[in-house]
Amino acid sequence: MRERNLRLTVEYDGTAYAGWQRQRESPTIQGTLEEKIGFVCGHKAELLVAGRTDSGVHALGQTANFHTTSPMPIFRLKEVVNQLLPHDIRLVDLQEVPATFHSTYHAKAKLYRYVIRNSQDYTVFDRNTYLLFRRPLDLKTMKLAAKRLEGTHDFTAFRGTLGKWADPQRTLHKITITRKGKNILFDYYGVSFLHQMIRILTGTLVYVGTGKFKPEDMTAILKSKDRKKAGPTLPPTGLFLVRVDYPKTFPPVRPKTPKVEDEE
Amino acid sequence: MRERNLRLTVEYDGTAYAGWQRQRESPTIQGTLEEKIGFVCGHKAELLVAGRTDSGVHALGQTANFHTTSPMPIFRLKEVVNQLLPHDIRLVDLQEVPATFHSTYHAKAKLYRYVIRNSQDYTVFDRNTYLLFRRPLDLKTMKLAAKRLEGTHDFTAFRGTLGKWADPQRTLHKITITRKGKNILFDYYGVSFLHQMIRILTGTLVYVGTGKFKPEDMTAILKSKDRKKAGPTLPPTGLFLVRVDYPKTFPPVRPKTPKVEDEE
Repeated sequence: MRERNLRLTVEYDGTAYAGWQRQRESPTIQGTLEEKIGFVCGHKAELLVAGRTDSGVHALGQTANFHTTSPMPIFRLKEVVNQLLPHDIRLVDLQEVPATFHSTYHAKAKLYRYVIRNSQDYTVFDRNTYLLFRRPLDLKTMKLAAKRLEGTHDFTAFRGTLGKWADPQRTLHKITITRKGKNILFDYYGVSFLHQMIRILTGTLVYVGTGKFKPEDMTAILKSKDRKKAGPTLPPTGLFLVRVDYPKTFPPVRPKTPKVEDEE
Repeated sequence: MRERNLRLTVEYDGTAYAGWQRQRESPTIQGTLEEKIGFVCGHKAELLVAGRTDSGVHALGQTANFHTTSPMPIFRLKEVVNQLLPHDIRLVDLQEVPATFHSTYHAKAKLYRYVIRNSQDYTVFDRNTYLLFRRPLDLKTMKLAAKRLEGTHDFTAFRGTLGKWADPQRTLHKITITRKGKNILFDYYGVSFLHQMIRILTGTLVYVGTGKFKPEDMTAILKSKDRKKAGPTLPPTGLFLVRVDYPKTFPPVRPKTPKVEDEE
């Protein structure tokens, strides 16, 4: 049987899950997907993923791939897996990709979004998809602060509790802050991120927005390499992995690949 | 201390609750609200409600009232209770009303809405707020069928399992069916409803929309008084109590009031 390498784009509401990575005790996105895909393909399916999202974090366009010997047509496989998946996980896309494609190592850049509902008012029906923050936030100063965080820096001050072994130097291409109705959207486009980095970056920018920090403080916080100098780690409810970008062609993966990093 | 009669308008996502009515074993909307209101008021609070919604049913404008001797200003009481409530229940409004006002017996009419996501596509983030139905539905025939259900009828054929003792004659002022983007909204405006009546009415109208039933069949189903002749009971995910209407002035409540009916 011909082996195919299939890439899936997946959307999930992370509220009910202990993050992406498979665990023995708790329901996870990876565990749920691998169970349903394995059932349909008739063999154990192992997913390679672009970014390991944390407990409660959502995704609009998480990317993963797996190898299968199942001869089932792709459109049918996608349909059947979606029928079996719980309502909070959905395959948005399923494509055959070259055998060498690897979701983790070929990822060129990722877009994460943090959503703050900046309003006195909210509804109970979308409560897991933003952080409610009632006090006014000054977009102008937050944008100035964001400029100072862009580029290649040692982000030790913005790192969570996991993955202390990872290289703290990261490249943040762009931070875009926009108001859209009652929401403020914080978009982070970069190569890769440290554990909880975006939740801490947003917590720090919110401190700027309320006047507790000044835009200039960002440079000092980066230099300090001290987590205690930055703002709070915001809850996962507002965080979405929006998109993963890949190059048009995929170089072959080096035979020995390091451990996937804990990310957002 | 002066006793006040307070009327609350409440919004809730019913997904996590075993309906409105207080139960010993399961979390309910009434139980949760009474606990938090009682805590803040410093005495046991007992809620009188407009319509007892079933397990999983939502509300945008459920109405209830309670009597309190707490001297706390109303705006403050609302704020503190909202801080204590879980994120899926919210007080939208809190008002002092005349001592004679009774949420159940003075309700003049109610608006319920059933939402069908009539699309191949959906998102995982609002999955508890509609019923996903992919096949096309013919609005024109559904509207013709709805016309035959309006008015005062014996709705025995559209009654759920509870409340068999209740008078099956009900007055349905108006059914409005509208397409709004990917959704079809079924709005039912009437005096009061039988248990699961709207979910069965909508299930029957969906059978008309797919061509399984004809609009003329509605008259025969009503006449049959046979639950088996009507369509299926749709799941509670798509059902919302939108609004309860009251007269401008409230007649005194008769001293002996019958048991509240099980409704949607």
